[in-house]
Amino acid sequence: MSTPQIVLSDPVHLRAEIRAGRFDGPTAGQGGDALQANLVILGADDAIDFLRFCQMNPRPCPLLAVGEAGDPGLPLLGRGIDLRHDVPRYRVWRDGELDEEPTDIAGLWRSDMVSFALGCSFSFEDALCSAGIPVRHQQAGRNVPMYRTSIATRPAGRFSGPLVVSMRPMSAAAAIEAVRICDRFALAHGAPVHLGDPAQIGITDIMRPDYGDVPVVAPGDIPVFWACGVTPQAAIAAARPALAITHAPGHMLVTDIPSARADRILMGPGDLAK
Amino acid sequence: MSTPQIVLSDPVHLRAEIRAGRFDGPTAGQGGDALQANLVILGADDAIDFLRFCQMNPRPCPLLAVGEAGDPGLPLLGRGIDLRHDVPRYRVWRDGELDEEPTDIAGLWRSDMVSFALGCSFSFEDALCSAGIPVRHQQAGRNVPMYRTSIATRPAGRFSGPLVVSMRPMSAAAAIEAVRICDRFALAHGAPVHLGDPAQIGITDIMRPDYGDVPVVAPGDIPVFWACGVTPQAAIAAARPALAITHAPGHMLVTDIPSARADRILMGPGDLAK
Repeated sequence: MSTPQIVLSDPVHLRAEIRAGRFDGPTAGQGGDALQANLVILGADDAIDFLRFCQMNPRPCPLLAVGEAGDPGLPLLGRGIDLRHDVPRYRVWRDGELDEEPTDIAGLWRSDMVSFALGCSFSFEDALCSAGIPVRHQQAGRNVPMYRTSIATRPAGRFSGPLVVSMRPMSAAAAIEAVRICDRFALAHGAPVHLGDPAQIGITDIMRPDYGDVPVVAPGDIPVFWACGVTPQAAIAAARPALAITHAPGHMLVTDIPSARADRILMGPGDLAK
Repeated sequence: MSTPQIVLSDPVHLRAEIRAGRFDGPTAGQGGDALQANLVILGADDAIDFLRFCQMNPRPCPLLAVGEAGDPGLPLLGRGIDLRHDVPRYRVWRDGELDEEPTDIAGLWRSDMVSFALGCSFSFEDALCSAGIPVRHQQAGRNVPMYRTSIATRPAGRFSGPLVVSMRPMSAAAAIEAVRICDRFALAHGAPVHLGDPAQIGITDIMRPDYGDVPVVAPGDIPVFWACGVTPQAAIAAARPALAITHAPGHMLVTDIPSARADRILMGPGDLAK
């Protein structure tokens, strides 16, 4: 169904191609070093509780920006962003169940809709690679393995559920270095939440992830776990809002913010890359 | 042999009591929050290689200050320090073998002697406690367990040997937090060098440390390993200099520098606490 994809390093150009229907693929490796974001769109009735959920659970739900009700733009993250068209593929959830995966949601947009852009792991994976730490699922061309844990999120209204984690196997020395690096990326899930024994966080079989692909583990590796952006999707499934729209996995909102900026809190439009 | 000790929170007063021969005990808990240091004193012939050894191995040997040849003071670290008297107990090494443990070394001082003050783990242990991370050997009133590893230091002249590590058992979540905290304390061994499987760094039995006391391990703990200030003592044993003087274990040089300052490089006398 996806068209053959080329690499578009300019995020403004990339979003224009997406909007024109000429790009509907995964965004990994696209948009140069621009920060990519998870997207959640909810009606006003649900938005306030979801906002509280994000603020109480910042590791899995690092808030980059929240749109004004009814406004499909996110001026903090990029000039001219229109969330009705500018994500390559969406997921539409009705009563907490996945209903369809369109490439445009203009027909679903309402004047009470609030958008949430959440940091994603692409930012820190780039930093790990730059530090010489192997990101094994990338090297193998696989998706990162993800797991539901026995750690509960802090509930807000109807939004609740387990913390979902992503896992990257690496040596102990690399794990220590990864904590040091990722601690800087508060807007990309920050430092790991666990390492070592998976059973301590309720994961019974590391080789059977709940989402993503089977891990690639090298001799001497230990599993290192990060809070994951799938957590809010699990919370939406639990809350069962009449309508929720998210990006499709891997098909992210590409912003104009340089990825390295995910180590700072975005303070306002003045923070936007010129 | 030690006299009954009272708590002296002012480092200048504490050093005066030590110099007067009225205090010869361990310095843990003494001197308020003042930075404490490991001490090494060598003749000029050995000093240049030892200085290179420290600079090539900054994790186990974080250099706080190096004295001028023949000067028993360390003005960078405290007003009026006289290293011939101001440490409660010394160790005198001849040809790499421990020879005596005096409380004063005035009779051994020579005009070519160079002193080295190295950061110690007390600084970051305080920070761990403040963050609510249990430091189990402290709680049990024991010395920290220490181990020789299969990791080699970078040799400099005759100074060489294994990296010695200290070990603190804690939960995985605490270990991640400890990496974040200790990374700030570059002058107190910095972030851990290893965690998890001891065999990966050549430790065959965690319950049989090479130095210090048997560890106290709680269910779910993982071992976390830091580069240790015993490493330079092992390097001195390997180098076998005709004469070397160090502090006795636990009997440290107490400086005038606030402990929290161990997260910065000391730049010069202007850095000294007023």
